[in-house]
Amino acid sequence: MKQFIFLLIILSISLTTFAQKVNQQDSIMLRKIFDEALVNGKSYDWLEHLSNSIGGRLSGSLEAERAVSYTKEELEELGLDKVWLQPVMVPKWVRGVNEYAYFESTTGNSTVVNICALGGSAPTPEGGLKANIVEVKGLEELAALGKEKIEGKIVFYNRPMNPKLIQTFEAYGGCVDQRYAGAMEASKFGATGVIVRSMSLKIDEHPHTGTMTYGDLPLEDRIPAAAISTKDANLLSGALKLNPKTTFYFNQTCRAFPDVESFNVIGEITGSMYPEKVIVVGGHLDSWDMGDGAHDDGAGCVQSMEVLRLFKRLDYKPKHTIRVVLFMNEENGLRGARKYAEVAENNNEKHIFALESDAGGFTPRGFSFQSSDEDFKQIENWKPLFEPYLVHYFVQGGSGADVAPLKKDYNVMAGLRPDSQRYFDYHHAHTDTFDKVNKRELELGGAAMTSLIYLYDKYGTVNDPVE
Amino acid sequence: MKQFIFLLIILSISLTTFAQKVNQQDSIMLRKIFDEALVNGKSYDWLEHLSNSIGGRLSGSLEAERAVSYTKEELEELGLDKVWLQPVMVPKWVRGVNEYAYFESTTGNSTVVNICALGGSAPTPEGGLKANIVEVKGLEELAALGKEKIEGKIVFYNRPMNPKLIQTFEAYGGCVDQRYAGAMEASKFGATGVIVRSMSLKIDEHPHTGTMTYGDLPLEDRIPAAAISTKDANLLSGALKLNPKTTFYFNQTCRAFPDVESFNVIGEITGSMYPEKVIVVGGHLDSWDMGDGAHDDGAGCVQSMEVLRLFKRLDYKPKHTIRVVLFMNEENGLRGARKYAEVAENNNEKHIFALESDAGGFTPRGFSFQSSDEDFKQIENWKPLFEPYLVHYFVQGGSGADVAPLKKDYNVMAGLRPDSQRYFDYHHAHTDTFDKVNKRELELGGAAMTSLIYLYDKYGTVNDPVE
Repeated sequence: MKQFIFLLIILSISLTTFAQKVNQQDSIMLRKIFDEALVNGKSYDWLEHLSNSIGGRLSGSLEAERAVSYTKEELEELGLDKVWLQPVMVPKWVRGVNEYAYFESTTGNSTVVNICALGGSAPTPEGGLKANIVEVKGLEELAALGKEKIEGKIVFYNRPMNPKLIQTFEAYGGCVDQRYAGAMEASKFGATGVIVRSMSLKIDEHPHTGTMTYGDLPLEDRIPAAAISTKDANLLSGALKLNPKTTFYFNQTCRAFPDVESFNVIGEITGSMYPEKVIVVGGHLDSWDMGDGAHDDGAGCVQSMEVLRLFKRLDYKPKHTIRVVLFMNEENGLRGARKYAEVAENNNEKHIFALESDAGGFTPRGFSFQSSDEDFKQIENWKPLFEPYLVHYFVQGGSGADVAPLKKDYNVMAGLRPDSQRYFDYHHAHTDTFDKVNKRELELGGAAMTSLIYLYDKYGTVNDPVE
Repeated sequence: MKQFIFLLIILSISLTTFAQKVNQQDSIMLRKIFDEALVNGKSYDWLEHLSNSIGGRLSGSLEAERAVSYTKEELEELGLDKVWLQPVMVPKWVRGVNEYAYFESTTGNSTVVNICALGGSAPTPEGGLKANIVEVKGLEELAALGKEKIEGKIVFYNRPMNPKLIQTFEAYGGCVDQRYAGAMEASKFGATGVIVRSMSLKIDEHPHTGTMTYGDLPLEDRIPAAAISTKDANLLSGALKLNPKTTFYFNQTCRAFPDVESFNVIGEITGSMYPEKVIVVGGHLDSWDMGDGAHDDGAGCVQSMEVLRLFKRLDYKPKHTIRVVLFMNEENGLRGARKYAEVAENNNEKHIFALESDAGGFTPRGFSFQSSDEDFKQIENWKPLFEPYLVHYFVQGGSGADVAPLKKDYNVMAGLRPDSQRYFDYHHAHTDTFDKVNKRELELGGAAMTSLIYLYDKYGTVNDPVE
């Protein structure tokens, strides 16, 4: 037993010494990063401009174009080594005007409800679409009902997000198939249209849009699809229980245009030791057309820009090339992310680490790492450094839609994980506006991201350590 | 080395077995608590009523009286073993109307600013008070300036909250002496009035009230004191830099009345094994008169009520007496807390644990424990149970103003610690309204509190363990 205790003491001492060595230098640097972000941070001002002076930035829109120019100019102001635009062709879909819907329980007894077209949806026929409506809890129930019960009708997908899940992104993941594939599947059974319960845990009057697919369906089978607010979904469901012959009317004039050219906005500080090894930090510059896209993903963009601003301001000279990428077209195509990965591949660039912020500008809780167990062990050693800032919840899991295409065996992808409780209240809705973002919460996220990138730059990854 | 590894394995196994034993039963119970709170929680509805149908509940006001009746009725609905009102005399201070202020940089060039009287302040003389104004960064600078520079003037306390502190309550603690003691101290140097920068990290137009003291000053020396919005504090400070002879005018008609009778609202489930040992959970029912007091502390009250509702709903029969206490008059007197502790003492009641929620209805991060190191070790063993809900940040520190008077050597006091970033945006201001509370964040707090009380009830404390 004595020997055991002795060994335990030795072990503790050596661990402590190691920890102290890492801690002292690095904890001073992290403190500097957080202080500068909280006192002189620029992310909130940038977001104010993106949200209030530019607004929703759907791919192919004038607003997206203006956001490209604005962020490029702002990055140029930072005195980076290089700032450029990377061209990419993106889809252009336009919502149109006068989205309108009601349900009719009995003739003449109609209730107006709040809808919005899903992104990429076909329009309704001119003058709108009216039909009986049938409620299902998902794609399985749709298939079980089959052609007989579906043909000629509007399908109403009404499976709510599961409130029991603490991480709201899991609840979103458990529902979003209805929005993404609902129209495609319903069309196969002869449905004429689709109404989907908004992906939100909040019961309110705001519909939430989002991307959808028709897969390989021929043009004539592409039926219109819209989201309905959670409050109206509950109303409609109640009306259907009283009268299953309730009819639904909706009108939307959305339209797809040919692809247009847009850009990823990129800036970098070139590495002093390993210029050919790249660390990426980014968010997506496009957003949906409703609201300002302040949380999704204006926040992630300005936080990523702040990472490079902080390094410049603190006069930190990175060993690796640190690159901010504001990806275009995450929401309805992921074209920017694919283009970036393709160009990186063609140029034989080695990306050792990439970090995305695309879960809202809320208080950061930690990071999620798409990594080997060995790489994850490395980051767990850094955990105590993040504890004073309460950003020390580290898990293995997904990273971000825009950085995922960069994943290789040897590298690490990560995503900032802010508190997720409020995210889906605003996500893809009119309510995703600047006033929903708290300055300090946003800044803490940017500072946490900078800290993580600093550590990866200083120490490298398991496969690409700094020698 | 082999022996070391062997012992390490044995140690791991026994730790694991112990952990599993605690974990399995308890983690099932915690899951039930969180599920019920997130699916059928009542706290949000209660808060809606308290905020929107009753409103700000300053001690001695009609609203406070209505809040007493409402919460008593709602507790009675829960089928507790006992619900009662505990009488307590409270101060009655009334804001009055037409609070108004401006500063005048040069004659005729005046800027209207947003102020509100501090709680307990004297009124200005009829028609208002106008004088030169002198800026200080705190009580020390005031004393350094002395009578010569202060006499006849209005003192402007303008030390802001420190944005570098991650826990905003620490930043508040570093400033609040200006508000609490500013008028008393300035009066000693002959000042005629006091203007205090609002205790908020947000730069906006809302003044934040809060309690203040005159100490033993005779009535004639009690000079009027008001809070100014952070934005206007910055403006005024800028104007004073340009012209130190800037004057300030303010008018407020607040008034103190004789004490009136009010009540702590109390309900309990009597313990099955230790009815004489009491566990308290609570918040304070009074609030400031501005806003609805939704976060401060409507949230804490409805979360505490939810604890008892959850136990009844889940048919949990506590071993100890579990008591919810909605304390009256935390904001400007703490009379309810003192009365409760005094009655408990007189009745020889043994309080083994008390928990307060008075830091807003935001996402809970953990708890702070006013406890011995030994008691803190106990709670650290329970930490893994809270990790799935991300409420596992446990620290030793303060508890809550209302439960602190119950502290003895043998017992443990605790406070819920929600995310603190947004709290001081709303604290004591017009903006502390129901719409600032997220339903899930509120419910997670109530569920975390219920979980902690369940564990203390099941296992007891170090000094009063369950045998």
